Amino acid sequence: MRFCQAFMLELWRHLGPDMDVPAGDIGVGGREVGYMFGMYKKLTREFTGTFTGKGLEFGGSLVRPEATGFGGLYFVNQMLETKGIDIKGKTVAISGFGNVAWGAATKATQLGAKVITISGPDGYIYDPNGISGKKIDYMLELRASGNDIVAPYADEFPGSTFVPGKRPWEVKADIALPCATQNELNGEDAQHLIDNKVTCVGEISNMGCTPEAIDLFIENKIMYAPGKAVNAGGVATSGLEMSQNAMHLSWSAAEVDEKLHAIMHGIHAQCVKYGTEPDGYINYVKGANIAGFMKVAHAMMGQGII
Amino acid sequence: MRFCQAFMLELWRHLGPDMDVPAGDIGVGGREVGYMFGMYKKLTREFTGTFTGKGLEFGGSLVRPEATGFGGLYFVNQMLETKGIDIKGKTVAISGFGNVAWGAATKATQLGAKVITISGPDGYIYDPNGISGKKIDYMLELRASGNDIVAPYADEFPGSTFVPGKRPWEVKADIALPCATQNELNGEDAQHLIDNKVTCVGEISNMGCTPEAIDLFIENKIMYAPGKAVNAGGVATSGLEMSQNAMHLSWSAAEVDEKLHAIMHGIHAQCVKYGTEPDGYINYVKGANIAGFMKVAHAMMGQGII
Amino acid sequence: MRFCQAFMLELWRHLGPDMDVPAGDIGVGGREVGYMFGMYKKLTREFTGTFTGKGLEFGGSLVRPEATGFGGLYFVNQMLETKGIDIKGKTVAISGFGNVAWGAATKATQLGAKVITISGPDGYIYDPNGISGKKIDYMLELRASGNDIVAPYADEFPGSTFVPGKRPWEVKADIALPCATQNELNGEDAQHLIDNKVTCVGEISNMGCTPEAIDLFIENKIMYAPGKAVNAGGVATSGLEMSQNAMHLSWSAAEVDEKLHAIMHGIHAQCVKYGTEPDGYINYVKGANIAGFMKVAHAMMGQGII
Amino acid sequence: MRFCQAFMLELWRHLGPDMDVPAGDIGVGGREVGYMFGMYKKLTREFTGTFTGKGLEFGGSLVRPEATGFGGLYFVNQMLETKGIDIKGKTVAISGFGNVAWGAATKATQLGAKVITISGPDGYIYDPNGISGKKIDYMLELRASGNDIVAPYADEFPGSTFVPGKRPWEVKADIALPCATQNELNGEDAQHLIDNKVTCVGEISNMGCTPEAIDLFIENKIMYAPGKAVNAGGVATSGLEMSQNAMHLSWSAAEVDEKLHAIMHGIHAQCVKYGTEPDGYINYVKGANIAGFMKVAHAMMGQGII
Amino acid sequence: MRFCQAFMLELWRHLGPDMDVPAGDIGVGGREVGYMFGMYKKLTREFTGTFTGKGLEFGGSLVRPEATGFGGLYFVNQMLETKGIDIKGKTVAISGFGNVAWGAATKATQLGAKVITISGPDGYIYDPNGISGKKIDYMLELRASGNDIVAPYADEFPGSTFVPGKRPWEVKADIALPCATQNELNGEDAQHLIDNKVTCVGEISNMGCTPEAIDLFIENKIMYAPGKAVNAGGVATSGLEMSQNAMHLSWSAAEVDEKLHAIMHGIHAQCVKYGTEPDGYINYVKGANIAGFMKVAHAMMGQGII
Amino acid sequence: MRFCQAFMLELWRHLGPDMDVPAGDIGVGGREVGYMFGMYKKLTREFTGTFTGKGLEFGGSLVRPEATGFGGLYFVNQMLETKGIDIKGKTVAISGFGNVAWGAATKATQLGAKVITISGPDGYIYDPNGISGKKIDYMLELRASGNDIVAPYADEFPGSTFVPGKRPWEVKADIALPCATQNELNGEDAQHLIDNKVTCVGEISNMGCTPEAIDLFIENKIMYAPGKAVNAGGVATSGLEMSQNAMHLSWSAAEVDEKLHAIMHGIHAQCVKYGTEPDGYINYVKGANIAGFMKVAHAMMGQGII
Repeated sequence: MRFCQAFMLELWRHLGPDMDVPAGDIGVGGREVGYMFGMYKKLTREFTGTFTGKGLEFGGSLVRPEATGFGGLYFVNQMLETKGIDIKGKTVAISGFGNVAWGAATKATQLGAKVITISGPDGYIYDPNGISGKKIDYMLELRASGNDIVAPYADEFPGSTFVPGKRPWEVKADIALPCATQNELNGEDAQHLIDNKVTCVGEISNMGCTPEAIDLFIENKIMYAPGKAVNAGGVATSGLEMSQNAMHLSWSAAEVDEKLHAIMHGIHAQCVKYGTEPDGYINYVKGANIAGFMKVAHAMMGQGII
Repeated sequence: MRFCQAFMLELWRHLGPDMDVPAGDIGVGGREVGYMFGMYKKLTREFTGTFTGKGLEFGGSLVRPEATGFGGLYFVNQMLETKGIDIKGKTVAISGFGNVAWGAATKATQLGAKVITISGPDGYIYDPNGISGKKIDYMLELRASGNDIVAPYADEFPGSTFVPGKRPWEVKADIALPCATQNELNGEDAQHLIDNKVTCVGEISNMGCTPEAIDLFIENKIMYAPGKAVNAGGVATSGLEMSQNAMHLSWSAAEVDEKLHAIMHGIHAQCVKYGTEPDGYINYVKGANIAGFMKVAHAMMGQGII
Repeated sequence: MRFCQAFMLELWRHLGPDMDVPAGDIGVGGREVGYMFGMYKKLTREFTGTFTGKGLEFGGSLVRPEATGFGGLYFVNQMLETKGIDIKGKTVAISGFGNVAWGAATKATQLGAKVITISGPDGYIYDPNGISGKKIDYMLELRASGNDIVAPYADEFPGSTFVPGKRPWEVKADIALPCATQNELNGEDAQHLIDNKVTCVGEISNMGCTPEAIDLFIENKIMYAPGKAVNAGGVATSGLEMSQNAMHLSWSAAEVDEKLHAIMHGIHAQCVKYGTEPDGYINYVKGANIAGFMKVAHAMMGQGII
Repeated sequence: MRFCQAFMLELWRHLGPDMDVPAGDIGVGGREVGYMFGMYKKLTREFTGTFTGKGLEFGGSLVRPEATGFGGLYFVNQMLETKGIDIKGKTVAISGFGNVAWGAATKATQLGAKVITISGPDGYIYDPNGISGKKIDYMLELRASGNDIVAPYADEFPGSTFVPGKRPWEVKADIALPCATQNELNGEDAQHLIDNKVTCVGEISNMGCTPEAIDLFIENKIMYAPGKAVNAGGVATSGLEMSQNAMHLSWSAAEVDEKLHAIMHGIHAQCVKYGTEPDGYINYVKGANIAGFMKVAHAMMGQGII
Repeated sequence: MRFCQAFMLELWRHLGPDMDVPAGDIGVGGREVGYMFGMYKKLTREFTGTFTGKGLEFGGSLVRPEATGFGGLYFVNQMLETKGIDIKGKTVAISGFGNVAWGAATKATQLGAKVITISGPDGYIYDPNGISGKKIDYMLELRASGNDIVAPYADEFPGSTFVPGKRPWEVKADIALPCATQNELNGEDAQHLIDNKVTCVGEISNMGCTPEAIDLFIENKIMYAPGKAVNAGGVATSGLEMSQNAMHLSWSAAEVDEKLHAIMHGIHAQCVKYGTEPDGYINYVKGANIAGFMKVAHAMMGQGII
Repeated sequence: MRFCQAFMLELWRHLGPDMDVPAGDIGVGGREVGYMFGMYKKLTREFTGTFTGKGLEFGGSLVRPEATGFGGLYFVNQMLETKGIDIKGKTVAISGFGNVAWGAATKATQLGAKVITISGPDGYIYDPNGISGKKIDYMLELRASGNDIVAPYADEFPGSTFVPGKRPWEVKADIALPCATQNELNGEDAQHLIDNKVTCVGEISNMGCTPEAIDLFIENKIMYAPGKAVNAGGVATSGLEMSQNAMHLSWSAAEVDEKLHAIMHGIHAQCVKYGTEPDGYINYVKGANIAGFMKVAHAMMGQGII
C-alpha cells in the first residue's frame, strides 16, 4: 500500500482518462489498483476511469475478472462459425487453472463445448466427462488454496486422470486454448496438436505460443488466433469500465457480456478483412497486424502532421 | 432568485459532479434548482450534472418527479414476490396526495393493485372502488389548487368517503404506504394495521414511521421496508439525470423507468442478502443498514489508508 | 492542413464540448475536421467531442454521412403516418446526387417508397423503375468521379431518361425532397408539384425552397416540412457522436440509426404540438419556429436572470 | 457598488496583470476601483495589481493622486534644462484647481518656480505673490467644497485678483500648464502666450490644446510638450503600484517620487532622441509619436510573426 | 519530517502567497518549515513565498532570526526619541537568552545602550559592565548547549552575578524588555520597575506582561509598548522574505535591516497618531489597537459589501 | 523563426519561471530568444521571466550583453584585492573580440588596468598603449563586419602589432583573461604565462583552459579562477532580468551593474571560504566546487526526503 501511494505521488500528474491509463498485470491486481486509485483520487480530486480493474464498490465493472476468457471464446466461436463449424460438442483443451482458464471454461461450456483439460505447474488433468459446473468451482478453490497444484482434482472427481509433469497438448482435442503463461506451447506441442487433428488454436495467454509453434500452425493451415486478437477481451472490458465511469452508471453482467461479445466480433471481422488469403485460409496473425496498423495509421494521417 | 444566485456566488467552487451535488428538498424545487444551476453555469462555464432536478429544457430527466413513488412500488412488489405473493388485486392504503403519493398510486395501479386511500392535513379519503386514472389526475389538481385539502374528492367521486381528522391507517388494507411526512405512522397506527392483518408496509416518506411503529412491525414479522431502502428511487433518478448529462443524452421515460426498476431490484437484493434471518423473515432494517455499511467499508478499505 | 492548424492555434481556447462545437459545412468535410481536431488535441491534450464528423478511427460516428438523409425520411414518414398515409409504394422525387440524396434514397427505399428522380447541375434523371440498390451505388460513383454530372445514369440503366437542364420538380411524384442546394425549388416548381398533386414536400437541403414556394405549399395545405426540422438529422447525429465520445464508446450503425429515428420522432411531435391548426392542417413552419422558441425561452427563464 | 460588482461578474475572466488592467477615469475614482477590486478578488481569489488607484490600505501607492502633476513638472523642468534654462524663479500659469493642478503647483513650487494662476469654471485667479504652501491647501479646500468656483480665493488672499469668465492664458508667464480639461487652450490663447513670450507650454491635461494652438507653438518654435508625453506620470505611477503589488511591498512617498522622476526623465530623453530637428529645435510632438511607434514596432518584430 | 509531509499532503491546496501563509512558532523552526516547504513545492510545483523562515539556500531571508529583537529595539528607540530621550548610555534589563534576547541585546548595544541582565529558567544574570560582543556569543552558546541555564555566565565573566530563582525586573534599569515568555512580568514586577524609575518597557515577548502589569504602567504614565506593536519585526521580516521570493532576489543583511527599520518606524508612527492623549502621554496599547482596527476597517469598506 | 515557433509549440508546457528557464547560447541570441518568447507568450498568455536575453522593448535587461565580461572583471578585481594587489596599472591580455571581450576590456579599463591584447581566428593584436575608448568601439566594428579577423586593427592604430596565427598568451601580462572559446589556453600557453610571471588568470570563456593548463596554474600557486565562478555574471544577469520582470520594472544600467557587482562579490567570498588552503593559497577550483555542492546539498537536505 505504501509503495502504491508513493508511486502515485510521483506519477499522478501524468495519468488521466485521455492521457495514460494504468492497468493491472502480474502481481498487480484489484488490491493494488484500489490503493493506487485511492491515492490518485486524493491528489486529483477526480473520480474518473483512469484506473481499471477497480473494486465493484468504487467504479469497477462486473465481468472484468472473466473478461479475457469470455472474450477468447467469443473469438474462437467466431473463427469456427466463419468456417461453418459448430462449437457445440467440440472438445477443448485448456491450460492453466486461474482467472483466464476460469472464464474460458465457463464460456466454452455455455456455448456447448466440452472442456477436457486444465493444468497447473504440477501437470494436467484429463477429464473426458467435461469440466463444468461444480468442477469449475472446485478448480477455483484449488487456485485460491495457494498450493498451486491441480492434482487433487483427480481424487475429487472419479473418471478424471492427473498426468504429472506434462502439458495438456498431448491430448486429442478439437480446440486448444493456452490460458496459462508465455511460451507454454512450443513447436513440439504444436506438432502433437496437428498430429491429433486440432481444428483451432486460440492463444489466450500472452505470448503463449513460441514462434516455432505459430509457424507450424500457419504452415499446416490450422486456424490460429494470436494473443493480440484473441485475448483482447480483458483490455476491452477495461474500456467498458471506463465507459461506465464516464456515464456514472454500472451495467449489469449481461450488458457487459453483450458489449464484450460485440467488441470481439468486431475484432474478428477486422482480422478476416485483412487476413484472408487467396485460398480462403484466414491468417489471423497477418490480419491482426495489418488491422492494428491501419487503424493507427489512418488516425495519424487523418489528424494531420502535428 | 437573488438568494439562489448569492448562495451560488459563495458556494460554486465547492460543488461539482465528483465533489458535492446539491439536490432539492422541502421548499427547494425545480424553480430554485434552475436558478442555482443558471448561476453555477455562469460562474463555472460548465454544463455538468452538478445539480439534479433541473428543468427538462436544460438537462433534467423525465420521470424525476414520479421517481420516489415508482421506486417505492418496485421495491414493495419485490418484497411480495420474494414471499410468493402477487401484488395484483391487493388493496393499498396510501397517505399524502403530492408527488410521492402520485407516483406510488400510479405505479401501484399499473402493477394491478387497488389504491383505496389518500390523505391530506384535513383527513383521509376512503375509496373502495380504487383510486386510479382520472381520480389520480383529480388528486393532482387538488394538490395544485393550494388549498391543501382532500375533502372535495368525496364530493367528486360518489362511493368514496372523507374521514376528517384521521389518518388512513385505520382502514383495512393489504399494503400500507406512508407517502406524506415524517412520524405520520405511530405505534397506535401500526397496531391498527397489524390487527387488520396488513401484509407489507413500505415507508416511502422520509422517517414516516415512529420507532415504536417499526419495532411493532418487526416483532410481528410484518414485511416492513425502511425509507432508506424503499424511497431511494428519488436519489437514484438524480443519479440517472447525472448519467444523462454525462452522456449528452436524454433518455425516454421508458428507459429511465426501466433503469429505476433495475436499481430498486438491486437494492432489494442487497437487503435480502444481509437481512434474512434464520427463520426466513427478512429484516429490511437490518439488511439495509448492513448493506450500506458494507459498501462504504469495502470502498474505504479497498482504497487504502489515505 | 496548414490553414486548419493555424486556425486552431488562434481559436482553441474558445472551443469545448460545453462551449462551442464547430462542425463541417460546404468545403469543410472529414479531412478538414480531422486536421482541426488533431491540432486542437495537441494544444488542449483533451480527446473530447469538441469536433464532430471526425474519422471513424478517432472518435467519429457511424451513420454520420447518411444522417441528414436518413433523418429526413424518418420525419417525412412521420408526417405521412400522422395523416394515416402509408409511405409504401409512394413515388419520391429527389434532387441532388451527393451524401444527402444518398441517405434519402437509401432510407426511402428501405421504408418501401420508390425513388424516381435524382439530379445534378446538368439536369435530372427520371427512372420510373425506382432508384435503389446498385443504382444508388452507381450514383455515388458518379458523385465521386468529380465530373459533377448525372447524365451517364441514363446510359447505364435502360428505362431511365436524362432530362437536360431541368429540375425534377416537373415530374409527378407523391413526395418531393429537395436534397441539393439552396433555392433549388422556386414558386414555379412548387406550382408544378401542386398541380401534380404532390402529397408531401420535405426541404432536406438547407433553405432549398424559396419563400414563394413555401407560401404556395402552405396556402394549398400541402404537407411541407421546413429544413430546420426535416434536416436536423445531421446535427442530431453530431450530438450522438458527442455522446459516444463522452461515453468512450462507439455505437453500432443500428444503434445510431435507432437513436436518430427517436430524435426525429421527437422533433416531429414538437412540430405537431405547436403547429396544428384548428382545421387539422399541420403548419410545420409555425410548429418548428414555436417549438424552438419555447425550448430556449423556457431554459432561459428557468435559469434566472444572470 | 452594485454596478461595479455586476460589471466585474461579467468581466473578471478577461482581466489580469499580464492581460488587461483597468484604471480610473472621469467618474471612476478610488471608490469605484475599490468596489471593483473587492469583487474581482472575491471571484479570482487573487490579490494582484490588476487594478491601480486602489486604497492605501489594500495595495494602493503613495503619490498616486499627485503623480500626473509631479510627472508633468519633472518633464517641463527637463525641457528647460535641455535648453540651459533654470526653472528657479520662473512664473507659471496653471489652469484648473483639482488633483492635477495640485500636483503641478506643489512640485513647481518645490522646484523654485512661482505659480501665479489657477482657474475654475467661473474664471481665474491671478496671484503675483505666488500660489504655494497654505494657498495650495486652500485651493484643495475650494475643490472639496463642491462649489466648483475659485473666486473666494481672491477674498482670502489679499494681493490676488479674480478675473471672471476668462482663462489664465492672457497673463504673462514663462511657463503655461493647462491642467484642467480638453480644448482649454485654443489658437487665440496660444497667440496670447506667444505674444507674451512664453518659454514653455506643457499640456498636462488630456488634449488640453487645440490643433490650432499646437501648430502655432511649433511654428513659433515654442517648447511645447504634448499630453501623451508630459502627462504620462499618472499611468507611470499605476505601473509603480503594480510593481509594489508584485513585490508585496509599499514604497515610501520619496521612493515613488524618485522612480517617477526617473521615468519622466527617460520619456523626455526618448522625445529628444526622436524629435530634435536639424536646427536644434525639439519637436516633442514628433518625438513622442516616433518614440512610441518605435517601441511597439521593435517589440512586435522582435517577437516574430505569430 | 513524515509528520510535516503528511500535514502538507492534506493542506497544500489551501495555502498560497495570496491565501494563507503558515509560519513557525514554538516547536516549529527552520527545520520543520523546510520539510513542509519541500513537500508543498513537490505538490504544487511552485516556488513561492508561501512559507517564511525557510533555509537561506532555498529562499530564506537574512536577518530573519534576529528580526524580532532588532525590530523591538527600533521601536523602543523611536519611543524614546519621541520624548527627546537619547538611548545612548541607557541601561537595559532583558529577560531570556534565546533568539529574541540575542537580537535585542545586539541591536541595543549597536544603538549605544548597555544591556545589564539576561535570564533563564534558573535565574538571571546581572552584569553591570554590559552584555555585548563576546558575551552575547557566549549567551548563544549557553542556549545551544541544551542545558537551559544561564548560571555559568557568572563563572565565565567576572564582575557579573547570578541571581538564582529570580526575574531580572528587580534590577534598576532605564529600559525593561521582556524577551522570554508569556506572563513573565506581573503586577509585582511592574511595581518594582516603576519604583526603580524605569523609563520605558517594551513587551517583546508575546503577552509577556500580565494585565495588572500593563494597567500599572499606563496608570503611572510609563512608556509601555504592547507586543502587538513592539514585536512585529518577526512577522514583518517574514513579509520581506515573501518580497524577496516574489522578486527572485536575496537582499543583503543591511537591506533587510534597513527595511525592517522603516517598517517599525511606520508602526510607531501609527501608534502615536492614534494613541496620543490630550496630556501628551502616548498610550501605545490604545494606539496599536485603533490603528489595526482602522486599517482593516478601511480596507473592508473600501472593497464594498461582497 | 519558424523553427523557434515549432520548438515552443512542443515545449511550452514544460517551461516557466519556477520550472525551466531556457537561455541563449552559441547560435541562439536575442533574435531567437525573441521569437521563442513571442510564441511562448502567445500559447501561455503569460508575460513572465521564462526567457532571458529578451529585447529591451519587451522585458530585456540593460547590461545583459556586457554582463559576462563585467562580472569577470569584478571577480578578478576581488581576487587581487584579497591578496592586497591593486588592479590599477596592471596589464591585461584578453583573447577574443566579441561580446565577452568587449565587456571585459571595458570594465578592465574602468577599473584602471591596461588591456594590451585582443585576438581573432587570424591571430592577435598587441597594443602596448592600451585598448580602450575608441579602440574598443573599433573592435566591435570589426566583429560586426562579419569578416572574423582582427588584423585591420594594427593598420588603424599605429603602435599596435598584429601577430598572425598565434594566441596572445605569449605576451607578458599581469592578468590573462581567455574570453574567446573552449580549450583556447593549453598547457604550453600556461607555461608561457607562468614563465612571464602572470599574477592572475580568469577563465571567462566556457572551459577556456585545458586540464593541463589548470593543473599548471594550481601547482605554481597562480591565482586561477575557473569559468564556473568567474563567468557567472551572464547567468546572474539573466536572474536579474527575471527579477525585473517579476517586479514589472526596468532597472537602470547602473542598478544592474551594481547588483551584478554584489553577486560576483558574493560568489568570490564563497570560493574563498571553501577554497583557502592552509598555506593561504586560494584554490578557486576547489572553492567553487565545494561551495556549489554545499548550497545544493543544504537545500536538498533542508527540504526533506521527498
